[in-house]
Amino acid sequence: MFENKERTDLALLGEFGLIKHLTSNFKINHESSVKGIGDDAAVLNFEQKQVLVSTDLLLEGIHFDLAYMPLMHLGYKAVQVNLSDIYAMNGMATQITVSIGLSSKFPLEAVEELYKGIELACNKFNIDLIGGDTSSSKQGLVISITSIGYAEKNEVVYRSGAQEGDLLCVSGDLGGAYVGLQILEREKLIFLENPNIQPDLEGKDYIIERQLKPEGRKDIVSLLSQLEIIPTSMIDVSDGLASEIIHICTQSEVGCTIYEDKLPIDPMTYETARELGLDPTVCALNGGEDYELLFTIKQADYEKLKHDVDVTVIGHMTDKASGAKMISKSNVVHELKAQGWNAFKL
Amino acid sequence: MFENKERTDLALLGEFGLIKHLTSNFKINHESSVKGIGDDAAVLNFEQKQVLVSTDLLLEGIHFDLAYMPLMHLGYKAVQVNLSDIYAMNGMATQITVSIGLSSKFPLEAVEELYKGIELACNKFNIDLIGGDTSSSKQGLVISITSIGYAEKNEVVYRSGAQEGDLLCVSGDLGGAYVGLQILEREKLIFLENPNIQPDLEGKDYIIERQLKPEGRKDIVSLLSQLEIIPTSMIDVSDGLASEIIHICTQSEVGCTIYEDKLPIDPMTYETARELGLDPTVCALNGGEDYELLFTIKQADYEKLKHDVDVTVIGHMTDKASGAKMISKSNVVHELKAQGWNAFKL
Repeated sequence: MFENKERTDLALLGEFGLIKHLTSNFKINHESSVKGIGDDAAVLNFEQKQVLVSTDLLLEGIHFDLAYMPLMHLGYKAVQVNLSDIYAMNGMATQITVSIGLSSKFPLEAVEELYKGIELACNKFNIDLIGGDTSSSKQGLVISITSIGYAEKNEVVYRSGAQEGDLLCVSGDLGGAYVGLQILEREKLIFLENPNIQPDLEGKDYIIERQLKPEGRKDIVSLLSQLEIIPTSMIDVSDGLASEIIHICTQSEVGCTIYEDKLPIDPMTYETARELGLDPTVCALNGGEDYELLFTIKQADYEKLKHDVDVTVIGHMTDKASGAKMISKSNVVHELKAQGWNAFKL
Repeated sequence: MFENKERTDLALLGEFGLIKHLTSNFKINHESSVKGIGDDAAVLNFEQKQVLVSTDLLLEGIHFDLAYMPLMHLGYKAVQVNLSDIYAMNGMATQITVSIGLSSKFPLEAVEELYKGIELACNKFNIDLIGGDTSSSKQGLVISITSIGYAEKNEVVYRSGAQEGDLLCVSGDLGGAYVGLQILEREKLIFLENPNIQPDLEGKDYIIERQLKPEGRKDIVSLLSQLEIIPTSMIDVSDGLASEIIHICTQSEVGCTIYEDKLPIDPMTYETARELGLDPTVCALNGGEDYELLFTIKQADYEKLKHDVDVTVIGHMTDKASGAKMISKSNVVHELKAQGWNAFKL
């Protein structure tokens, strides 16, 4: 992984030295960050706003494979995945803490790559790194990120607010990250069989990027705010559209009907899925890791949103007894099932 | 570890089922916890107060050894270690998030033990569990906890506020957790050589408990508030007294003189250290994991505190040029050195 590069042993820096070295480039931008790294705890000030907190644990061999995930991309993605949860509350993300466990296979230069990705994500999304923990690990790379943000009290959007008749919307397109992963897995297998063959990723940039470099939809939260729309419910699409729809239905105690022909699928996702013998609709429904926002709006808000090309209305909410359904292109009714990722079945 | 017990495979529950199962007993007590587990992010409301956030990563084989650390104790300790950082800001801890990674060697029953300890700590210290993440792990047990608390703006205490002439105080006693660990390590070695020998921990209850079941000093934060003392600086003793004193000196730009004969060392710590051929003073200075509070107060506040038996004045702050010094029992001046734990030198 780092064969031809300089290798500096982490033990030379020690824990405090390492933290200082890695975080010296990071700047504090938010007024709400009263005190960042350097004391027992960070100190934040959100005045009257509500504070949003979300946390994720990413483990090598479970959530990422360093064989095809460059460390800089991993750092970037780890942050994005977390911010996405704050945006899914209709909030603005402002701070993160980053804890990492590092086995001895990682020299300083590798950790610097990881932090370059973290820094890139922080800069792009205006996030202050305010704390964390750094340790050696006997177990490969461990990343734990907690993201913090805020929203006005009346603007926080839960999974539980959808009502019968509301329109179900999703940002961007679906299934790309999953199909991108299949391409990466295929090329990894080919490489393992014959290390002389270069990976063939030509023409797959978009879906590879969807997998390796997803972007939290801060822009959608801003758009909704500009359009003066407060969604009635919202969730981010991390485990697959079907699974997230069922979360909203369960917590809001409503049903839902979506239409297969409305699902936003990028042509590259569609073509590549077919190439791999996969059903593009299944990829969109169950693929996961798209980090798009899935939300419901009142019908009255549709006029405000209808010209936005990056949001698609894919269905509407029904009564609880009707359950979560998809009407296929051939007009057959399918029940939606959560085939989302089970972290314990690997 | 769990040989004679029932074993339920975690995959049977899945991620969401496991979280629900483990957290169903936990109650939300704080008004500031607007929404806990069950949405994309937790929602908190601290009104005008400042928000404190701290995070720790605990890895099997690095931070704990399941050979002598029962899972319930581990859960309890993992929470306490985190809360301690909030108390060290002179704040009240109110919420935690808990993320765990579990390898397949852990059946449900083991994870339940871990969560029993987490629950015990939450109940005792009035903490709401408001979120987290649960995943399988290829690499043993991973625990990441983020603790959240609050303080009034003018009551947050940093490491950087100590001034020349301030008195240096420490709560409780020092070195016990380290000496307790030495006993546990000794008994582990004996056990590995001859599994028929039962561990000999007789008469060592206090120091074993200091290692396995430390308590964050919430009571000291309450005491200081009652006495109307706002320390000028504060830190918790996790890496050893000497290391923490140096943090305060560096960040406050002052020096410090402490007196060996003032160091609070419990008789059991003292005797056991001697028994093991260790210098009790060195154990107190460099042992770590005591989770006591080390703080400085204005001399004028001494009158308010002097009758409290659980706080010891161990020295006073001097000018920066004088450095951090200890006057030994035989009146020799030693320079304090941070021999705190280096997580990368193992």
